[in-house]
Amino acid sequence: MSYDPSIAQSGDLALMVSAQKKRYLFSLTPGQQLQTHRGVINHDDLIGQTWGSQVHSHLGSAYLLLQPSLADLLMEIKRNTQIMYPKDVGYLLLAMDVTSGKKVLEAGSGSGALTTALAAMVGPTGQVYSYDNREALQNLARKNIAKVGLSDRVTFKIGDVGNGFEERNLDAIFLDLPNPYDYLPQVREALKSGGFFGSILPTTNQVSRLINSLHREKFSFTDVCEIMLRYYKSSAERLRPTDRMVAHTGYLIFSRPVIDVLDEDRTTEENSDDSGDSPID
Amino acid sequence: MSYDPSIAQSGDLALMVSAQKKRYLFSLTPGQQLQTHRGVINHDDLIGQTWGSQVHSHLGSAYLLLQPSLADLLMEIKRNTQIMYPKDVGYLLLAMDVTSGKKVLEAGSGSGALTTALAAMVGPTGQVYSYDNREALQNLARKNIAKVGLSDRVTFKIGDVGNGFEERNLDAIFLDLPNPYDYLPQVREALKSGGFFGSILPTTNQVSRLINSLHREKFSFTDVCEIMLRYYKSSAERLRPTDRMVAHTGYLIFSRPVIDVLDEDRTTEENSDDSGDSPID
Amino acid sequence: MSYDPSIAQSGDLALMVSAQKKRYLFSLTPGQQLQTHRGVINHDDLIGQTWGSQVHSHLGSAYLLLQPSLADLLMEIKRNTQIMYPKDVGYLLLAMDVTSGKKVLEAGSGSGALTTALAAMVGPTGQVYSYDNREALQNLARKNIAKVGLSDRVTFKIGDVGNGFEERNLDAIFLDLPNPYDYLPQVREALKSGGFFGSILPTTNQVSRLINSLHREKFSFTDVCEIMLRYYKSSAERLRPTDRMVAHTGYLIFSRPVIDVLDEDRTTEENSDDSGDSPID
Amino acid sequence: MSYDPSIAQSGDLALMVSAQKKRYLFSLTPGQQLQTHRGVINHDDLIGQTWGSQVHSHLGSAYLLLQPSLADLLMEIKRNTQIMYPKDVGYLLLAMDVTSGKKVLEAGSGSGALTTALAAMVGPTGQVYSYDNREALQNLARKNIAKVGLSDRVTFKIGDVGNGFEERNLDAIFLDLPNPYDYLPQVREALKSGGFFGSILPTTNQVSRLINSLHREKFSFTDVCEIMLRYYKSSAERLRPTDRMVAHTGYLIFSRPVIDVLDEDRTTEENSDDSGDSPID
Repeated sequence: MSYDPSIAQSGDLALMVSAQKKRYLFSLTPGQQLQTHRGVINHDDLIGQTWGSQVHSHLGSAYLLLQPSLADLLMEIKRNTQIMYPKDVGYLLLAMDVTSGKKVLEAGSGSGALTTALAAMVGPTGQVYSYDNREALQNLARKNIAKVGLSDRVTFKIGDVGNGFEERNLDAIFLDLPNPYDYLPQVREALKSGGFFGSILPTTNQVSRLINSLHREKFSFTDVCEIMLRYYKSSAERLRPTDRMVAHTGYLIFSRPVIDVLDEDRTTEENSDDSGDSPID
Repeated sequence: MSYDPSIAQSGDLALMVSAQKKRYLFSLTPGQQLQTHRGVINHDDLIGQTWGSQVHSHLGSAYLLLQPSLADLLMEIKRNTQIMYPKDVGYLLLAMDVTSGKKVLEAGSGSGALTTALAAMVGPTGQVYSYDNREALQNLARKNIAKVGLSDRVTFKIGDVGNGFEERNLDAIFLDLPNPYDYLPQVREALKSGGFFGSILPTTNQVSRLINSLHREKFSFTDVCEIMLRYYKSSAERLRPTDRMVAHTGYLIFSRPVIDVLDEDRTTEENSDDSGDSPID
Repeated sequence: MSYDPSIAQSGDLALMVSAQKKRYLFSLTPGQQLQTHRGVINHDDLIGQTWGSQVHSHLGSAYLLLQPSLADLLMEIKRNTQIMYPKDVGYLLLAMDVTSGKKVLEAGSGSGALTTALAAMVGPTGQVYSYDNREALQNLARKNIAKVGLSDRVTFKIGDVGNGFEERNLDAIFLDLPNPYDYLPQVREALKSGGFFGSILPTTNQVSRLINSLHREKFSFTDVCEIMLRYYKSSAERLRPTDRMVAHTGYLIFSRPVIDVLDEDRTTEENSDDSGDSPID
Repeated sequence: MSYDPSIAQSGDLALMVSAQKKRYLFSLTPGQQLQTHRGVINHDDLIGQTWGSQVHSHLGSAYLLLQPSLADLLMEIKRNTQIMYPKDVGYLLLAMDVTSGKKVLEAGSGSGALTTALAAMVGPTGQVYSYDNREALQNLARKNIAKVGLSDRVTFKIGDVGNGFEERNLDAIFLDLPNPYDYLPQVREALKSGGFFGSILPTTNQVSRLINSLHREKFSFTDVCEIMLRYYKSSAERLRPTDRMVAHTGYLIFSRPVIDVLDEDRTTEENSDDSGDSPID
C-alpha cells in the first residue's frame, strides 16, 4: 500500500482544534491518549483519518484534525521564554536569506521556536547551530526540535557567546539576546564576509546601542524595522479588524559585516521605500 | 584549490550598492560589463573579490559588493506586474508551511517574485508548480527564475485556472489572482485534504467575496490579516521611523479545505490573539 | 478672597488616581464621600487642596488629585454603549471644524461622550443638538452632560432620524448610527450647503454602502480613514511600545454636501498624502 | 437683508478645489483676483455664491467653493517650518483639555499652525500665548493668525524660553521645541499646579531625555504615544487603503506637574489599555 499524504500517520504532527478555537498540538503515537477539556481521544482513533476530518472525544465534543503550519508550531510551542512571532520570523528569513541549504547560527536557543523555523527552512542540506549558556533552557529547545522531527538539522551547543563561536564562514547569524552589541567581533569571526547578521530587541535604547556598535565594528547596510500584524474578523458581511492586537514584539535589526565601509556611508539612512531601480540584468 | 564561500565566483548572484543606495543586481559572468550611473565595471574585476569589499567603476565611484538576500531578489526583480513584498511573502511561508521538501502551487506566475521565494524555501527535494495563462508574462518569470538558478525546482505551466490543475495532493496553493473566489473547487481538487490555501487581495470587497466562497466550499480556519512594515532611520543618536511608508499592499487570506466543517463553526470569528493554550505534548 | 484656579473647589470635576492607576472621576460635593477600593475619602477633605496634591483614604492609601482632561472624561464616562475614543474624536473635531461658536448636531446621543467633546469645543457661543430615539439612553447622556456642567450648550431631542431634524443651516452633523446611508437627505436638509458631514462605522461593508449613498446624494470630498494610537511604556531607559493596543474602533468617513459635483469627480480617489500646494494668500 | 451662513461673504475664508484636487485657500476680498493653474477667478464672482457651488476660471476650469475646516487650515498654512498634523493636534487638544475658555501657551510659534488650532478651540473667552525667539518666524505665524481672523485670542511674545514665561496659572503648556527637557522648571512656574504639559518630539532619544527630566522635576502621569493615520481610497466597489502613508510625524508626550509624586509611582508604566473602571458618580 502506497503512502497517502492526505491520511494522518503514526509519527505525524497533528493540530486538533475545537469549535471554540481550543488548540491541541501533538505527535500521533499509537497507544497514547489526548486529554482535552471536553473528554479523551485515543491517538489510535486519529491515525488513519483523513486530514481535515471531524473527530470526537469520548464525550462527543467535535474537533477538526489538521497538520500544523510552521506558524502554528511557533505559536503553540512549549515555552519558558518569550518566543518570536511568525510575523517577525517570516520577515527575517527573507531578509537574512535563510533558505534551503544555508548554514545559520542562533544565540540563544530560547525555547526553540526560531530554531524550528530555521531548521524547517534550511532543509536537510543546511544546518542550524544553536548556542545557549543555560543548559536547562536549551534542553527544552532540544526536546521541542526533537518533537517536530528536525533534530538532525540542528547542532545545540552550550556556551557563553562572549567566548565566540566554533563555526566559520556561516551564511547568517541571529542574536536573540538582550546585549547583541557586546558580541559583534564574535559574530564577524564566525560569519562569512558580507554575510547576514540580525537581531531583535524590545527597547529603543538597545537599538541605539546596537546601531552604535555596528557602526564601530564596520558593519554596513543596517536596517531597523518593526512589523505590525493586524487580524480581521473573517465575516463576509461584517468585515473589520479585530478589536485588539499585539502592539509590539520587538525591533528587527539587520546588518552586514563588510571589508570597507563606503566613505560617505549614508546607506543606513535612507532605506525607506525606494524599491531600487535596477532589475536583474 | 578548495571552494571559499567568502569569495565572489563566476555564476554567483551579486548585489552592488553605491553610497547613494543605488542598487545593481546581476549574475557574475566572465567577459561582461556592468554599466552604472557613474561608470563601468568589468565582471572580471569582481570575480575573485571577497564579498563585502569595496569596488570601483572606471570613473572611481565606490560600491560595496554583496550577495543579495531573498528579500533583495524580491524587491529588485525585473517586473511587469505588481510584485509581492517580503513582509507578505515571509508571513505566508510560515502560515502555509512552505518549508523544505514541500510541493506547492501558485497561480499566476506574475514576474516570478513569489515563485523565487517558494523555490528557495522548498529546496531541491520540493517542487513549485506555477500556472499562468499569459505566456509572455510567464516567460519573464521563467527568465527570472533561471537567473537565480532555481529552474529545476519550478514547473511552469500555461493554462486557465478555470480548467483546473494537473497536480493532486499538493501541500499548499496560493492564488495571486483578482478572483480567487471563482476557483475554489479547482483548488480543493489539487490540494490535499486539510492543506494550505492562501491568497492576497487589494480590496475589502474582494476579501468579502472570498470569505463567502470559502464558507460555501467548506473551507475552514479562515484567517484574514494585513502586515505593516515600518522602517527606522538607523541613526543611534536620532532613532526614529522614516517619514513615509507603504500603507497597503494587500490583505492576506488563509484557509483550509476540510471534510466536515464544525457544526457551530466560530473558528473564523475569533482568531484574534490567543496564542493557544496547549503546548506540544 | 479671589478665585485660585490651582485649588480644588466645590463643584469642580476631579480625577483621583492611585499608584496602581485606579481612577475615580467625580464632582466635588460638600458632605459627600468617595468609596475607593482601599478606603473612604470625604469630598470635604479634597475641597481646598491644591490640584496635583497627594490625598489619602481613611485606610492610608495614597491618591493624586487632578482635574480630568477631556480625554479622561471620554474614557471614564458612565456608559451603556460603545463610546468614541479620543483618537477619533480629536481628529473629527478638526476635520469637521467643530470649533468655538459652531452649531453642530449628532445622532445618536449614545452615552454622551461625543456630546461632551462637542460641547466643550463649541463653547458658550455655540450649540450642540443631540438626537436619539431611545429615551432611556438619552437620559444617561443628559445626566453625563449635566455632571460636566455643559447642559446649557446641549439641546437633547427624542426623535427618529428618519423623520428629519428640526434645525437648518447647521455647521456640522455627525451620525454615530449603524446605517447613516439611510439618512443623507435628512442630513442635507439640516446642514448648510457645503457643511461638514461625518460618521464612524465599524465594518468595511458599511463604509462601502455609505460611500455609495454619498455619491448618489451628491456629497463630495469624501474621505475615509482610520486612526491608530499606540502607547509607549514611559521608561527613559527602556523605551518601547506597550505590548498590546486597540486594533480598531471604526472607520471615520467625512464628506460635504455640494450643489454640483465636479464633472470628473476624482476628488474622492486621491486624498492620499499631498498636503496641498497653495498656501494662504 | 439678514445674514445667510450658506452664502460666501466678503472676508470669509474660502477653499477652492479642482477636479484634480488642486487646492487654493484664501480670504474673499472684493476687487482681488485668484490666479489658478488654469485661469483667473475674480473674488467678486465668488462673493455671494452658495458654499458648495461650482465656479469657473476665465478659461472654463471648474472648481468647488467651500469653507475650509480647521484640518484644512493646518495643512494649507503658509509655512517655513515643519507643521503639526491634524492627527496629532486633534489628540493633544483632548489630552491637554484645550477647550473653550482655557488659557494655554505654546513655544515656539512655528508657522502658526498649532496656534490656529489652539485659538479656534479656546474661543473668545480663552487666550493663547505664543512664544518664539525668532522674530521673523513669529511674524509669519502672526500673519497666518491674522488671516484666519483669530488675532484677538493670541498674544505673541518674542523671548527665549530659558528666561521663563510671564504668565502664571496657565491651564496648559505645549513645547514644540527640540529640547523641552531643558525648560521644565519654567513650565512648572507658569503652569497651574496639576496642569497639562505636552510636547512632540521626532526621535526616541529625545523622548528618553524628556522622560528623565519629567521624572526628576516631579511631573507625573507621563504618557508617550504615537498616532498613525491611514486614508482609504473612497471607492465603494474597491475599498482599500491608499498605497502610501505618513509613517511618522513625532512622538507625543503628555505629563502633569504634581506636588508629591506617589511613593511607588507606577502610573507611567501601564497606561496601556484599561479604559478605567470607575464611571462618573
